[in-house]
Amino acid sequence: MRDVAVIGVGMQPWGELWDKSLRDLFVEAALLALADTRVDKLDNMYIGCMSGGLFVGQEHIGALMADYLGQRHLPAARVESACASGGLAFRCAFAEVASGLSDIVLAGGVEKMTDVSGDGATFALATAADQEYEVFHGATFPGLYALMARAHMEKYGTTRDQLAQVAVKNHKHGAKNPNAQYPFEITLEQVKSSVMIADPLRILDCSPITDGAAAVILCPLEMAKKFTDKPLVKVIGAGQATDALALHARKDMTTIESTTVAAKRAFAMANKKPQDIHFAEVHDCFTIAEIMVTESLGFFPAGKGGPAVEAGETTIGGRMPINPSGGLKAKGHPVGATGIAQIYEVVKQLRGEAGARQVTGARIGLAQNMGGSGASSLVHILEVA
Amino acid sequence: MRDVAVIGVGMQPWGELWDKSLRDLFVEAALLALADTRVDKLDNMYIGCMSGGLFVGQEHIGALMADYLGQRHLPAARVESACASGGLAFRCAFAEVASGLSDIVLAGGVEKMTDVSGDGATFALATAADQEYEVFHGATFPGLYALMARAHMEKYGTTRDQLAQVAVKNHKHGAKNPNAQYPFEITLEQVKSSVMIADPLRILDCSPITDGAAAVILCPLEMAKKFTDKPLVKVIGAGQATDALALHARKDMTTIESTTVAAKRAFAMANKKPQDIHFAEVHDCFTIAEIMVTESLGFFPAGKGGPAVEAGETTIGGRMPINPSGGLKAKGHPVGATGIAQIYEVVKQLRGEAGARQVTGARIGLAQNMGGSGASSLVHILEVA
Repeated sequence: MRDVAVIGVGMQPWGELWDKSLRDLFVEAALLALADTRVDKLDNMYIGCMSGGLFVGQEHIGALMADYLGQRHLPAARVESACASGGLAFRCAFAEVASGLSDIVLAGGVEKMTDVSGDGATFALATAADQEYEVFHGATFPGLYALMARAHMEKYGTTRDQLAQVAVKNHKHGAKNPNAQYPFEITLEQVKSSVMIADPLRILDCSPITDGAAAVILCPLEMAKKFTDKPLVKVIGAGQATDALALHARKDMTTIESTTVAAKRAFAMANKKPQDIHFAEVHDCFTIAEIMVTESLGFFPAGKGGPAVEAGETTIGGRMPINPSGGLKAKGHPVGATGIAQIYEVVKQLRGEAGARQVTGARIGLAQNMGGSGASSLVHILEVA
Repeated sequence: MRDVAVIGVGMQPWGELWDKSLRDLFVEAALLALADTRVDKLDNMYIGCMSGGLFVGQEHIGALMADYLGQRHLPAARVESACASGGLAFRCAFAEVASGLSDIVLAGGVEKMTDVSGDGATFALATAADQEYEVFHGATFPGLYALMARAHMEKYGTTRDQLAQVAVKNHKHGAKNPNAQYPFEITLEQVKSSVMIADPLRILDCSPITDGAAAVILCPLEMAKKFTDKPLVKVIGAGQATDALALHARKDMTTIESTTVAAKRAFAMANKKPQDIHFAEVHDCFTIAEIMVTESLGFFPAGKGGPAVEAGETTIGGRMPINPSGGLKAKGHPVGATGIAQIYEVVKQLRGEAGARQVTGARIGLAQNMGGSGASSLVHILEVA
């Protein structure tokens, strides 16, 4: 298996981008990633997209995007694991290069979510849950995560203020990210008095609906210097796992077991421990998710994720900075693109290009991306080569 | 890169399977594939599915199927390239094993198409075409293939009878396939007098709407004897390519250029020529498609695909048997499953297990799977090891 490097990254400022179609969004991010390298011809492409069919009536986007990117005939695939589709695209691209099947591979993610009417976005997102046992009976994602939040509060004493601190911290980081959908700070009081969505989760506990894309370019480490003069970033760990799709079928709804298993696999491949990681981008689709995920990754013991946020340990400058990009909460969450945007941020940090949100001394970073209520997880570990 | 073998295959009889849900279909085929081996624990899984979201309101099926297959925590991904989703799943599984990332990998495909109401299936299938430049203006797949048929007839003199002969021949083969949705013969007159769908294509020129799944198990060739006593089948070529999604943007609508490019890549990897192939499973979503594809693969010169069918060259016993399984036409076309069912048939033939439809002396077989009006193609070549 060959060593693999990330040599280019690209994304546009995210938001409600009414003037850009699905193909516009992807091509823009892909061109930015290409322009970050000296690559002009790709060998393969994997695109994460959760539901082009339900959001904009377009499946089969591998071929569409290859053509609009000016790379007609390129092998190009769309991959999906709900909100973990971007992380999955990155893993497929990694396998493609590691195997020797292809040299220069683009991993991208895209979602155009604001062009649906009424409750279309909520319906489309709900297809990530179990249609027969959850969605049919009325479950939505805020509802499922609210159940997890209540169980976590009950079992560990996690507080309403600790949940709110996740949002406050991520907006503090996101205010320094020019690509963030909501690049401004918010207060604890604002979170706690925002409109109730699914008790105990309020609207400022939830990540938004977003249009956006992101792309990264991978190649064999030994070829990387041909295509970039920037610091080389090596993929040292890749872990993937699933769990029961329906929340009620899990062993324990206060932890994300698919993340724990995926992380174990990634740490084993990288020969690292959680304590070796300098910062992480994690999947904070709701505030409770970030707390559970930081525990499931082994950064904090079970039940200590909430106190860690409150103590500032996960803020840039703290012991374990989490979501320096602003996370899904402030940066936005175009579901298929999120996993790739995490890699974008990890690479920017490892290169020392993160500007006002730079994590000092960052040499090993982790990205954790998950789908649905945590039924699938991808964990990647990257290190300065 | 490691050599890769297919050690197990499974599929159920296809049709309008009202008593089976999406998950039932997949799990049934996967268990049949596992039972065809001595494997009980998988390392990874790739599932081709075109649009679980639009057909049955269920995306995120990697995690769902892993759990229902009794393989909780298994890394499991859904991949999509419209009707080529199955072929794509096979390629991803091949890369996964070849790279050394995983040993025992299941490649599956599934589609539950008959549970949608009204024109839901036609709408879902249309998302494989260009939404902005084709579907929005009313194009459907029978319409797009009818345009290709007219152009092919105009340029090469392909006849109405030659189109019909494809359907007659595939039903002749399918009548000997116990898994076929329509296992009976039809006559030239029946095809030519069947109801018109999109001139010149009549209903018996079209593949049907089908519920079904298929699964195959891959592992490194050097481990294969541990898991099966059957003849070993090695993957010797894997090629993938795309083309413009919209038909109007292609260089030539009388050929499938993505298939030509994918085939070149597969032949180069296998170090084989079209004349070395003993039989092929190809994507006959419409009768004209089989004629164009056999030309694009290099089995016949451009314009000679029609005469070849008419002369019986593509019938079992002919010079180049095409679709001994009955093809999409007689076997059925649950879009995400089709590419895997092609591999199922190639393996059955290479093992000498194809019963009444056995191609004598088959030692090298090819599978060609395509998406939409031919914007994406996967070509795989398998050989008895």
